Amino acid sequence: MRKGFASDNNAGVHQEILKAIGNANTGHVTGYGADPWTEEAEALFRHHFGQDTEIFFVFNGTGANVVALSALTSPFHAVICASTAHIHTDECGAPEKFTGCKLLAVNTPDGKLTPELVRPYLHGFGFEHHAQPRVISVSQVTEMGTLYRPGEISALARLAHDHGMFLHMDGARISNAAAALDLPFRSFSRDCGVDVLSFGGTKNGMLAGEAVLFFNPALTASVKYIRKQSMQLFSKMRFTSAQFLAFFKDDLWKKSALHANKMAKILEAEIRTIPGITITQKVEANGIFAVVPRKIIAPLQEKFFFYVWDEEAPEVRWMTSFDTTEEEIRDFARLIRNLLT
Amino acid sequence: MRKGFASDNNAGVHQEILKAIGNANTGHVTGYGADPWTEEAEALFRHHFGQDTEIFFVFNGTGANVVALSALTSPFHAVICASTAHIHTDECGAPEKFTGCKLLAVNTPDGKLTPELVRPYLHGFGFEHHAQPRVISVSQVTEMGTLYRPGEISALARLAHDHGMFLHMDGARISNAAAALDLPFRSFSRDCGVDVLSFGGTKNGMLAGEAVLFFNPALTASVKYIRKQSMQLFSKMRFTSAQFLAFFKDDLWKKSALHANKMAKILEAEIRTIPGITITQKVEANGIFAVVPRKIIAPLQEKFFFYVWDEEAPEVRWMTSFDTTEEEIRDFARLIRNLLT
Amino acid sequence: MRKGFASDNNAGVHQEILKAIGNANTGHVTGYGADPWTEEAEALFRHHFGQDTEIFFVFNGTGANVVALSALTSPFHAVICASTAHIHTDECGAPEKFTGCKLLAVNTPDGKLTPELVRPYLHGFGFEHHAQPRVISVSQVTEMGTLYRPGEISALARLAHDHGMFLHMDGARISNAAAALDLPFRSFSRDCGVDVLSFGGTKNGMLAGEAVLFFNPALTASVKYIRKQSMQLFSKMRFTSAQFLAFFKDDLWKKSALHANKMAKILEAEIRTIPGITITQKVEANGIFAVVPRKIIAPLQEKFFFYVWDEEAPEVRWMTSFDTTEEEIRDFARLIRNLLT
Amino acid sequence: MRKGFASDNNAGVHQEILKAIGNANTGHVTGYGADPWTEEAEALFRHHFGQDTEIFFVFNGTGANVVALSALTSPFHAVICASTAHIHTDECGAPEKFTGCKLLAVNTPDGKLTPELVRPYLHGFGFEHHAQPRVISVSQVTEMGTLYRPGEISALARLAHDHGMFLHMDGARISNAAAALDLPFRSFSRDCGVDVLSFGGTKNGMLAGEAVLFFNPALTASVKYIRKQSMQLFSKMRFTSAQFLAFFKDDLWKKSALHANKMAKILEAEIRTIPGITITQKVEANGIFAVVPRKIIAPLQEKFFFYVWDEEAPEVRWMTSFDTTEEEIRDFARLIRNLLT
Repeated sequence: MRKGFASDNNAGVHQEILKAIGNANTGHVTGYGADPWTEEAEALFRHHFGQDTEIFFVFNGTGANVVALSALTSPFHAVICASTAHIHTDECGAPEKFTGCKLLAVNTPDGKLTPELVRPYLHGFGFEHHAQPRVISVSQVTEMGTLYRPGEISALARLAHDHGMFLHMDGARISNAAAALDLPFRSFSRDCGVDVLSFGGTKNGMLAGEAVLFFNPALTASVKYIRKQSMQLFSKMRFTSAQFLAFFKDDLWKKSALHANKMAKILEAEIRTIPGITITQKVEANGIFAVVPRKIIAPLQEKFFFYVWDEEAPEVRWMTSFDTTEEEIRDFARLIRNLLT
Repeated sequence: MRKGFASDNNAGVHQEILKAIGNANTGHVTGYGADPWTEEAEALFRHHFGQDTEIFFVFNGTGANVVALSALTSPFHAVICASTAHIHTDECGAPEKFTGCKLLAVNTPDGKLTPELVRPYLHGFGFEHHAQPRVISVSQVTEMGTLYRPGEISALARLAHDHGMFLHMDGARISNAAAALDLPFRSFSRDCGVDVLSFGGTKNGMLAGEAVLFFNPALTASVKYIRKQSMQLFSKMRFTSAQFLAFFKDDLWKKSALHANKMAKILEAEIRTIPGITITQKVEANGIFAVVPRKIIAPLQEKFFFYVWDEEAPEVRWMTSFDTTEEEIRDFARLIRNLLT
Repeated sequence: MRKGFASDNNAGVHQEILKAIGNANTGHVTGYGADPWTEEAEALFRHHFGQDTEIFFVFNGTGANVVALSALTSPFHAVICASTAHIHTDECGAPEKFTGCKLLAVNTPDGKLTPELVRPYLHGFGFEHHAQPRVISVSQVTEMGTLYRPGEISALARLAHDHGMFLHMDGARISNAAAALDLPFRSFSRDCGVDVLSFGGTKNGMLAGEAVLFFNPALTASVKYIRKQSMQLFSKMRFTSAQFLAFFKDDLWKKSALHANKMAKILEAEIRTIPGITITQKVEANGIFAVVPRKIIAPLQEKFFFYVWDEEAPEVRWMTSFDTTEEEIRDFARLIRNLLT
Repeated sequence: MRKGFASDNNAGVHQEILKAIGNANTGHVTGYGADPWTEEAEALFRHHFGQDTEIFFVFNGTGANVVALSALTSPFHAVICASTAHIHTDECGAPEKFTGCKLLAVNTPDGKLTPELVRPYLHGFGFEHHAQPRVISVSQVTEMGTLYRPGEISALARLAHDHGMFLHMDGARISNAAAALDLPFRSFSRDCGVDVLSFGGTKNGMLAGEAVLFFNPALTASVKYIRKQSMQLFSKMRFTSAQFLAFFKDDLWKKSALHANKMAKILEAEIRTIPGITITQKVEANGIFAVVPRKIIAPLQEKFFFYVWDEEAPEVRWMTSFDTTEEEIRDFARLIRNLLT
């Protein structure tokens, strides 16, 4: 099947990761995480994030975010996020339903929060009529394809902590961020004050699997119950853990992410040469947003599937992934040019 | 690793199913179920259960049950189940948390509900102080290893429907039931009046994957939202669907289940020859419950892991699975005999 | 105790209403609404709103809104409201907690929604990743003291209904609206397409009591359970109902509301003569918003309590009520003048 | 209207309490509890229960129980109660809906829990599949009209605390208990280890009003938010508080409760002389349960309303209240005798 640019989760599974699943398929092991693969995968996360990191594997990104937020909140709390955040726009209200909290959506054109944007929402502390601000949640990479620099994360963490709040990072595309920033994972998350991280694997070549990482042991006493009650505890957990073994081995995650990012850069370069298309966001990771002539959308989608982000503009989103090829990008750009002439 | 008798989910993945996952790993497809593997898997379910069956794939058994019950209830409803039901004892309160409903747990030694047992809970209809009975939920195979016959299911369905209620079946081990009864799946579920079925794959050789099947189209309008909001929508769904293709191909499900059931029968026969051990439930599928001398438990668990069901008795549970071998059973029985002499 | 301008719920109870409570204190009646006072109060609501109106008395305004929204939604729905709406800013997240829904807060300086403001939120219908827009909720009088005209309500109702959605009105101050517009209640609610109305009594001289009114019988089958499960069913309900009897008798509600509105107008006239104070919203009912010199706030609050609405500006809110006297307003204005000289 | 024996909440309001409401109707005070009446009422509760008691007034008994349980639990917890407990049978699932917890209903013919009955439910601690036992909840007076002695409460408190759990008391009829036991409130609640108490006023002559009392300051940090989010925060709170002033003044609560209890004793004495009626529970407070000939129920209810508790038996419940008169009881007994001859 022709690859498209719809989403990095339309891609399949990296061969090394698939192989690791097969390798873990040996006999019986205790379910729900008490197995050697999980032990080893947890050790790898501790290697990357620090020895006191606590790790909870879950099925998917929405599950990771909900488990993370549930651990940080009581139902009378509020979570502050960008209005484009996955937790606000793409999880069908799962965070509200499961945590009981209010989400406060901040308008920000590039998908990034700043202290200036967040500060107006930090009021009403101690006032029982007001949902109490408790978490700032950022996405790294953002849903608009943009990146936070470490200093920007630190500033938000300071703001959160100064108000007795927590900083959550939705890292569904954290590999793309680490690759683009050329920084270790922890240097722009834990080391900047992030309290809880949703660490994504699925969008970077895994079959399925995310990890919720806690850097503050005081927050984790209830998490195993929260994970089970939120239907995110996998019986045959070794098959998630084994994927992470391959993910980290020889920095596979980084190769995959660098490749996806590079493909986006090539696509960006191609697009910038095409008159009539306007790239609307900085291309910092593996996503490109562009306003295009409406007439090319349908014929283009027929060959290469992708999503229209904003019907009005119309603005489209093109995502690259670990398996995107340069040839596909050249073909895609060629088709656009043809459709425009 | 030595196989044990702890749970059918301590087993790995059947080779055919693993192969099917690999076969589905070709290029890009639309996520969240709009792919050819899912289409084909749904067709197989419709073949088994009827053309108007609606199918929703989910990650795990708790997720299947919660999605099923959420579709049938409002928060002011009550769900009637056996006190040993998985939804009552093994889901950490997920059904209450997610549906808001009350669970009414009925004491029944063999894990089976009957109209006589359920009827005392069918009162207070229309009385706003009382959580309104809405669903009867049965497990087939039950958590005690016993089986419902079709007539028993029909009687419960009639009771439910006569009261404007629904019948839900938790079929985490439905393959073992179908194999043991030597009946098609639908003959003891849909055809007996079951409204919604949690169809299990994981405990019969799949990596992960369950399906929620609706036999009443009037109930399904909201299910896609419920599945997403309950964090059970898989982005790379083709990899669940592909597993079901192998599961149904050449009746692999049946071979696996027949084998597991047969191993339980052999183990039962062995155990019945050992004085001092009392089998406490009918062995009808792939589970054996037995009261054993306390002193043998720890040394036995060291070689073959299993769970103590009731610390008081003490009563243990031994589960067989698709990959249990006759040799393992003979070794296990031999060790028990040695420990008892 | 000196009366202030903090809130219309800092006032006490109108003498006629207090008397009605006493009059209802005769012997035993069936609890939870099966009593003659409730029957009569419901008849009065039907007289005002139409014979097929269904009425549910509750304790307070938050309860009314939550019961109303619960009846209209499933947890995967979204409710669109002004960012200043009571349901968004003053109910500590009760709507999210109880309904499970997402609230989408629309920025609007005067507290009023318009089709233009709402329309950008009406997308993603049928897309399971997106909380489904289900209710538009307006407050009449708004929390900013402004009023919707009937045509404005109708336009929002049309927009809602065209999208398969409902229009909810939070009428905590509906008496003030009816008095200010000089219109019957139903002419700017039910007759304009409002589906469910939270009808307030407490802020217009009652001790406690609100009513949730449904104009669409199809929506009410579950409401009695929702009310009970949301802890809003009053055992001695006759004492709420009796208050409404006095409330409606000889249009007491209207006299009280007209008086409060008139007091606001007088206060407005006074304030407009004072340099250095800027009234920030139209004064259409019983609330005045004004930016004032910071230095006068504390000394003014010492004599007449009121709330600072926006610490930054600083903007204050002054509310009048059924028992505010002209003399108090003159004294208040005089004190402001003194503090400013 | 002829008084019946349906419920102590079918009674009206004691004149002294009504008068207190009127007395509190003077001018403006700050809403939501920052008023002198509330301050004074809280001081009275501290006088009865200890200086570090924290008091939260709410609207009704279901609200009191839900606020209490919410403060003690996370959603993955379980609450153990009698199967006849109000929280299990009469609150339409509000505890499950609001706390997310599982309720474990213990069968007990007289409505009383004992350590022996509770102990089988105390397992699975630390096992994430199992809803974690967190609260034992007892009703004093029980819903079956029976009483716990202080030693019985202490034993349950010890059991709870030994397992890291809490003891909650639903004291909807706590006045009747204190009067019957002739003991101070605290001697059979706080002093026996109760952690949180739902203190009832409505069933003992108040218009509406209950208090949630916390004896452990560590539990109260979130309660003000929980109360608001559960829609139980009263804007004109002085009118609840004022009722409690009258309630405690000159031990009005005790006079009312003693009277109701005495009326039940007289009724019991009458009934015991009537052949064909079997009293089924000890008459220890203000309720009588009796199996009666079916034919007398309808004609009896026509004159004196009451509820059938168990249709099968048939067993009826007769409640007396602060305003029941001896004459009414004699008339009632006479009518029964007439109907039986």
